[in-house]
Amino acid sequence: MQIAVLGTGLMGAPMGANLLKAGFDLTVWNRSTAKAQPLAAQGATVADTAADAVAGKDVVITMLSDGPTVLALVDQIAPALRQGALWIDMSSTRPEEARAQAARLSPLGVAHLDAPVSGGTKGAESGSLAIMVGGKAETFATATPVFEAMGRPTHVGPSGTGQLSKLCNQAIVAVTIGAVAEAMFLAESGGADPAALRAALQGGFADSTILQQHGARMTTGDFNPGGLSKFQLKDLDNVLNEARAHDLTLPVTQHIRDRFAYFVEDMAGGELDHSGLYLELKRQNGL
Amino acid sequence: MQIAVLGTGLMGAPMGANLLKAGFDLTVWNRSTAKAQPLAAQGATVADTAADAVAGKDVVITMLSDGPTVLALVDQIAPALRQGALWIDMSSTRPEEARAQAARLSPLGVAHLDAPVSGGTKGAESGSLAIMVGGKAETFATATPVFEAMGRPTHVGPSGTGQLSKLCNQAIVAVTIGAVAEAMFLAESGGADPAALRAALQGGFADSTILQQHGARMTTGDFNPGGLSKFQLKDLDNVLNEARAHDLTLPVTQHIRDRFAYFVEDMAGGELDHSGLYLELKRQNGL
Repeated sequence: MQIAVLGTGLMGAPMGANLLKAGFDLTVWNRSTAKAQPLAAQGATVADTAADAVAGKDVVITMLSDGPTVLALVDQIAPALRQGALWIDMSSTRPEEARAQAARLSPLGVAHLDAPVSGGTKGAESGSLAIMVGGKAETFATATPVFEAMGRPTHVGPSGTGQLSKLCNQAIVAVTIGAVAEAMFLAESGGADPAALRAALQGGFADSTILQQHGARMTTGDFNPGGLSKFQLKDLDNVLNEARAHDLTLPVTQHIRDRFAYFVEDMAGGELDHSGLYLELKRQNGL
Repeated sequence: MQIAVLGTGLMGAPMGANLLKAGFDLTVWNRSTAKAQPLAAQGATVADTAADAVAGKDVVITMLSDGPTVLALVDQIAPALRQGALWIDMSSTRPEEARAQAARLSPLGVAHLDAPVSGGTKGAESGSLAIMVGGKAETFATATPVFEAMGRPTHVGPSGTGQLSKLCNQAIVAVTIGAVAEAMFLAESGGADPAALRAALQGGFADSTILQQHGARMTTGDFNPGGLSKFQLKDLDNVLNEARAHDLTLPVTQHIRDRFAYFVEDMAGGELDHSGLYLELKRQNGL
């Protein structure tokens, strides 16, 4: 199976490396070619243009910064795609942008899956990404070997629901950070040892990766990213946009979004890790 | 070591059974004697009164409904305690009630630990409770073998901080339920398969026992308790009382508390599982 990966940045490069390890014939392209070169040493062909990269390929994978960038690329290189090809967008976009990609590719006889990931650069490097896939079940079935070279894929529903699942993931993460911040703050104010508290809660109903990792950041004051607060705010805006599109009110997500907006816009916290919401809580408490 | 367990209800009975299995000499007392009898068959002595139960014992363990009940018992049976004994209250109380117990026992030469648990009847039966312990470190050290017969103890700080940790646990659980409710609602409204979504998020930053267990309850509509919503509301009121005692504002906990109050008081949801907050979210959305 011949695969083209477009976008070999922090995530795309290790994902491409894992496709090579799994034995796929790989062509790569990146806007700045320098970032694609390390994959050449591992056996990939580096293409000069995106259109060159995808010509005749079975599968095209995009891993780009946002939905409009992917959609522009679809429009630009669609003529170079062969009928029967599959485009898998693994970038994080809005669900409606995923459906727009599928709609523009369908008349050309090109299938489409939206397949955003969770797990960060560590997950990309170890091939253990959580991959949330929206699109037709039969298309998902044909793409499973490709996904399994990069992580653990789950088909969650029709086109756009992969991106929707990623938004659900982000909403839970953000609100959990808000919960952990308040618990850590109360524990410290009341004289409990926060590290002992986290150990005590391990394995129980209150436990989470957020409690253990981001909770530790709060008590040590280490807010070097990690996940940037400005991206968390953008994600929460996307969640709430999607909710409005379905006429839904999500009050706790809205509440946490407004606090991230204050942290990013009024406290200049945008470049800090999203666990920095702890600083916003302290500010609300006059500290 | 001779131990008395006062309160052999849903939690106290299996905890007493595990103390017997670990080889401790056990005397038990319960307000309604019938609930204590099954432990007699397993080797415990059943006492007629609480004072009889604790006379001469090394360790007294209370597992009762609330703080005022424990404090009343302390006042009632303190004269029967021997100097050098240790009182471990494993009930869930307010931190100030734990400190009041310790203060009343200290002049009698009786040590005290507050050691509430998380893990429910399943954890009590399997001897795998998370036990959050407040009090002196040297007292904790002497009690470790007793705790380890019932679960996994962690010393979190001075008197009252065991109860404080339990409140932190409850706050995180309640807010996480609010987060999962909104994620599940958005996913279903957007056409994703909620069971597949939960599977996809497994092991990632958004994953939790609440997502897997309570998230499943939300999509199947099974709100048989489990953890009662009216108790969740009581716990959240205790969290916020404690926050006020330290002059703290905890906005997301307050927000979720107000929604549980509406669910319990205006939607008659008090006897339903706390994952029933999903129904309150739907009500807010006109469903």
